Amino acid sequence: MTGTLYGIGVGPGDPELITLKGYRLLQSVPVIAWPAPLEGESMAHRIAAPHLPEGRIEIPIRMPISTDRFPVEGVYDQAAEDLGAHLSAGRDVAVLCEGDPFVYGSFMYLFGRMADRFPIRVVPGISSLTAGAAALGAPLAAQNDVLSVIPAPLPEEELERRLANADAAVIIKVGRHIDKLRRVLDRLGLADTARYIEYATMENQAVLPFAEAAQGKAPYFSLVLVHRRGEAWR
Amino acid sequence: MTGTLYGIGVGPGDPELITLKGYRLLQSVPVIAWPAPLEGESMAHRIAAPHLPEGRIEIPIRMPISTDRFPVEGVYDQAAEDLGAHLSAGRDVAVLCEGDPFVYGSFMYLFGRMADRFPIRVVPGISSLTAGAAALGAPLAAQNDVLSVIPAPLPEEELERRLANADAAVIIKVGRHIDKLRRVLDRLGLADTARYIEYATMENQAVLPFAEAAQGKAPYFSLVLVHRRGEAWR
Repeated sequence: MTGTLYGIGVGPGDPELITLKGYRLLQSVPVIAWPAPLEGESMAHRIAAPHLPEGRIEIPIRMPISTDRFPVEGVYDQAAEDLGAHLSAGRDVAVLCEGDPFVYGSFMYLFGRMADRFPIRVVPGISSLTAGAAALGAPLAAQNDVLSVIPAPLPEEELERRLANADAAVIIKVGRHIDKLRRVLDRLGLADTARYIEYATMENQAVLPFAEAAQGKAPYFSLVLVHRRGEAWR
Repeated sequence: MTGTLYGIGVGPGDPELITLKGYRLLQSVPVIAWPAPLEGESMAHRIAAPHLPEGRIEIPIRMPISTDRFPVEGVYDQAAEDLGAHLSAGRDVAVLCEGDPFVYGSFMYLFGRMADRFPIRVVPGISSLTAGAAALGAPLAAQNDVLSVIPAPLPEEELERRLANADAAVIIKVGRHIDKLRRVLDRLGLADTARYIEYATMENQAVLPFAEAAQGKAPYFSLVLVHRRGEAWR
């Protein structure tokens, strides 16, 4: 009997924002893996730590973390092999995923390598998008708004074109792109109403008018909310 | 001391997809309200029912439910008054919200009426968007994709323009707009790769290639996933 690979969304930061289902599975799965930097603490592991029982097989998947880079192929190849060995031996494996595994998550790289060979189940998690809206106290999208989720690493012209067409937008991965984003929001006349949030639901959460956000570099875990059509709920 | 109004995301359908935080609050709040049709069962209440303790003050907010219509002003005015009376008397109130309160949710109408007068906290929930992706077994968005959430009630031309510009898209509120959506997807050459899901995570969940979805009318709780740029994780 092959084991099942679970991609478990552990939520945006507050350990209480994991689902009952994710929590339950973490109590029973014999092997628990998570993405981690080459040195130091894994965000996904830190979020889930209060829920992890002792005595499990633990597999940190270590890789160089850079804000905009895409997967380190060799690392995921090796991880797929390591996790696959447990699955082939009949052991279920849980992979801890910040936010939701399928919303810009690195879990997709394991999924792409393993879905043909093993049963995979994804347990959705609270993404930073909705956690950010909750922290701001502002609906993300209303009625027939088109909601656009726009990664800040896009080229400046594309960022502007995308934002110009959005009813409601969340700009993600702001990080070192904040000055580029500021120029775009200025040109579109949105800089005064945009709202900025970093580390949503974590202890160091900050919520600011965009005009007051840092220059030069923001944390990778930051986002900006824009409502172009005003606020339909008011 | 004024009570706090909690908007609690109860998730997309599976009662286990509520957060630990939402669950905990439901155990302690003395007044619980939820949106409901004029007759019959409330979806939000049905999802949360296994978690609701006995002996609470229960307030169904009944209104005519139509698939595309926006709020019945008088109903929300009255609800804001009713819930406000409990808050003014110092009682916390929880409003059950399908999915996430701030993702196309009706909670925003209470929020808009009450945020100036009472403390409000939103507990994010799993939205049908991520639950749908998990049920399909397909990432919602990857890398620097722009993710567009597009309501199907939009006019046909706008629907087409929005979809033509999307990297990855989720079309929501499909319901009686499915034939219009089919025409648009056909014209864009996306009908063969689009995937359809209804009642994500509920007992009657169905996942189909879009080509096999019903003609004429789909359930309101259905959505369609499109990846225009292929699948970056493969």
